[in-house]
Amino acid sequence: MRKSFLLLPFLLISGMLMSQKEDSVFIRQLADDILNNGKAYDYLHQLTKEVGGRVSGSPNMVKAEKWGLKTIQDIGADKAWLQECMVPHWVRGGKDMVTAKTAGATRELDVLALGNSQGTGGAVLTAPLIMVGSFDELDKRKEEAKGKIVFFNYKFRNDFIQTFQSYGDAVKYRGGGAIAASKYGAVGVLIRSMTHAVGNNPHTGAMRYDSAYQKIPAIAIGIQDADWISDQIVKGNMTVSLSSNAHMLPDTIGHNVIAELTGSEFPNEVITIGGHLDSWDPGEGAHDDGTGCVQSLEILRVFRALGYKPKHTIRIVLFANEENGGRGGDKYAEVAKQKGEKHIFALESDEGGFTPRGFGLTASEDKFAKFMSWQLLIAPYGASDFKKGGGGSDIGPLGKTFNTPMAGFTPDSQRYFDIHHARSDVFENVNKRELLLGAVNMAALVYLVDKYGL
Amino acid sequence: MRKSFLLLPFLLISGMLMSQKEDSVFIRQLADDILNNGKAYDYLHQLTKEVGGRVSGSPNMVKAEKWGLKTIQDIGADKAWLQECMVPHWVRGGKDMVTAKTAGATRELDVLALGNSQGTGGAVLTAPLIMVGSFDELDKRKEEAKGKIVFFNYKFRNDFIQTFQSYGDAVKYRGGGAIAASKYGAVGVLIRSMTHAVGNNPHTGAMRYDSAYQKIPAIAIGIQDADWISDQIVKGNMTVSLSSNAHMLPDTIGHNVIAELTGSEFPNEVITIGGHLDSWDPGEGAHDDGTGCVQSLEILRVFRALGYKPKHTIRIVLFANEENGGRGGDKYAEVAKQKGEKHIFALESDEGGFTPRGFGLTASEDKFAKFMSWQLLIAPYGASDFKKGGGGSDIGPLGKTFNTPMAGFTPDSQRYFDIHHARSDVFENVNKRELLLGAVNMAALVYLVDKYGL
Repeated sequence: MRKSFLLLPFLLISGMLMSQKEDSVFIRQLADDILNNGKAYDYLHQLTKEVGGRVSGSPNMVKAEKWGLKTIQDIGADKAWLQECMVPHWVRGGKDMVTAKTAGATRELDVLALGNSQGTGGAVLTAPLIMVGSFDELDKRKEEAKGKIVFFNYKFRNDFIQTFQSYGDAVKYRGGGAIAASKYGAVGVLIRSMTHAVGNNPHTGAMRYDSAYQKIPAIAIGIQDADWISDQIVKGNMTVSLSSNAHMLPDTIGHNVIAELTGSEFPNEVITIGGHLDSWDPGEGAHDDGTGCVQSLEILRVFRALGYKPKHTIRIVLFANEENGGRGGDKYAEVAKQKGEKHIFALESDEGGFTPRGFGLTASEDKFAKFMSWQLLIAPYGASDFKKGGGGSDIGPLGKTFNTPMAGFTPDSQRYFDIHHARSDVFENVNKRELLLGAVNMAALVYLVDKYGL
Repeated sequence: MRKSFLLLPFLLISGMLMSQKEDSVFIRQLADDILNNGKAYDYLHQLTKEVGGRVSGSPNMVKAEKWGLKTIQDIGADKAWLQECMVPHWVRGGKDMVTAKTAGATRELDVLALGNSQGTGGAVLTAPLIMVGSFDELDKRKEEAKGKIVFFNYKFRNDFIQTFQSYGDAVKYRGGGAIAASKYGAVGVLIRSMTHAVGNNPHTGAMRYDSAYQKIPAIAIGIQDADWISDQIVKGNMTVSLSSNAHMLPDTIGHNVIAELTGSEFPNEVITIGGHLDSWDPGEGAHDDGTGCVQSLEILRVFRALGYKPKHTIRIVLFANEENGGRGGDKYAEVAKQKGEKHIFALESDEGGFTPRGFGLTASEDKFAKFMSWQLLIAPYGASDFKKGGGGSDIGPLGKTFNTPMAGFTPDSQRYFDIHHARSDVFENVNKRELLLGAVNMAALVYLVDKYGL
């Protein structure tokens, strides 16, 4: 008795150590293959340089879907298909323009109409400017807003260490500024760009209207221009002329691009890995979210290259529409529900292709504990910070529908808002090793979830 | 009795918690001030754009010393001085050139003579090329080397996660390649650049001669050119023509630039913080090591701005010569020894101005334990990886002389060897937030060492 009593934990522990060894060896193989033979950087070059920026509904987005499907077929998957979904169809329609004038100075600003916004149909709208620092200030000065263009000069905060916190803090002005201003009779809004960048690049992004109020033009301006206005407006009244051809067309057809490796033991239990294929138009959608797409494709490539046969069904999904609608994720979850699928885990990469820092997981306590037990296996590859709470816009609906545990890959966030939704979000600003290392860490996590379940 | 028995640990713990709270509040103040008002990025702009690349002994290095002293005086220190030391005086002397020819092809390579190397005095040296992958291969083929130019085509490894490991693995060919080849009668060496970068930029760096063998020209070539040679040489014999004006002049006078905040409680116990002011010439010495210098200056600035009075004497040192000699660090330690100074801690930043990952400390076990107790205070600012072993070339002699605990700031290493010793090591490749966050983490560690000792 005593002997077996001692032997049991010994066997258990040595079994655990052996499988930890095995896991660490396989993760090393994943890393070696990705770092030496990885194709994510080449895929990204194709997507950014041969396709370019790709707003949902645009001709470029159709090209991107074709590219995605062909790339998957070239890598090789058990199944590959396009999943149709209706997507919003917003078009910029040309160059957006804003000129600001005071008694003593005139300046043409560097601007981008916000996504989903309704422009002036190319006409020039001229009105006095009122600058406010916040919604509160606008509320206090609401009598002044009527007939004017409201400039929200809320500053992107430097003091948050995680830049997504700065974004969460400021993005309400981009999203809701037009509604707040239109409610008080304003005829247009300018928004200070949400960025830490040093230059004057404007940063676009999604905005909303409220059907109760007029749809007024909404335009992002660069931070140097924002500071110029701020300096000038104290000297006297400012008038702004703006024009934009931005407008919404009826919803159109888009597609999620999906690859599947069918599970050898649990073919009906699905692990989803993805990013979104759509992007804003000023740049090339490189970090947002070309990198998430090509890292997901890299996982497919490395699993095929190493002959890894997953126990569970693994799906790579390049989602159709995240930036101005979230329709890709909605459709994917909707179809999964219709088909009665079982989704055991989903992982998204949509915070840029920067050096890995960690993963965030949204799941029950016991699943979180299991996730934490893998931390030391993955940490040597960079993603050492395992924390509670994570996911992504595209996999969110899956989590809601099935209570699927969701993880978000967390790269370093310091450079993200330099390029986010701006002309500078181009291939040249993605570093090959940082990109590939992200794929290494994601592949390692997917392997562990596939092997041990979650 | 029982009461006081319980009270003592309670008081101790609550005292510890209170000081932890106080520390976390002060570190937050350091971060807020640096992230909102930091000047490191502006200092770096001055150093890179108004001075530029600065090899020890060059006119630019004299300008850099003046700039450093003036910047310290502008910030304000209790003392500021130049500490004279003799430095090596290597000059490139013009454009280095290499042309490679086979029967079917000719290519002008993008090259940089290695630092400390002796060129051809501008004459063209033409000789057949022999390519080897390693010292071992050269040893085996030593009969072939006589009268030839040896090309060391050792590849920078992708599979190490920490890129300094790839560097440590490959740098022996740059440092010792000329000796190994000259020993077998070779007349010159080409070295494959030590880089993960995608382009063809050559990367220079220090090399050595051995007085027992001929000083032969030693030149770095870009990796695309290296791959081209590798592709061509299998098709037939290759001849290389090279010229370089590189040469050594007699040692000349350089200076460590030093600022001091005199300690209020322990004026005779010194904490040193620094980076090296000298750099290679092809770029602007931005990451190597302009960033380390300006981060150190930023600590001086923030301590002054917040009115922080250190208990110990804090010295900021911009070291005179690291790249091709280490004379700055040697002199600083030598003078400290002469003066009988007591050095309780030294911190160096010389791995680039990238996003913070951690600190490495070389110290006794008990000091290391104390250092580890601060990890949770600093981790929220990015430097979460506290590990054993660390320091820097410039503070190394201090560690050797006094057994001073030495720490190295460890930023993320993924992009470092893209720019290291190359034309691309310019201001534009430094990110403002990453740079400032490095200073935040360094300032926090210095504050804790100053407050609690080490």
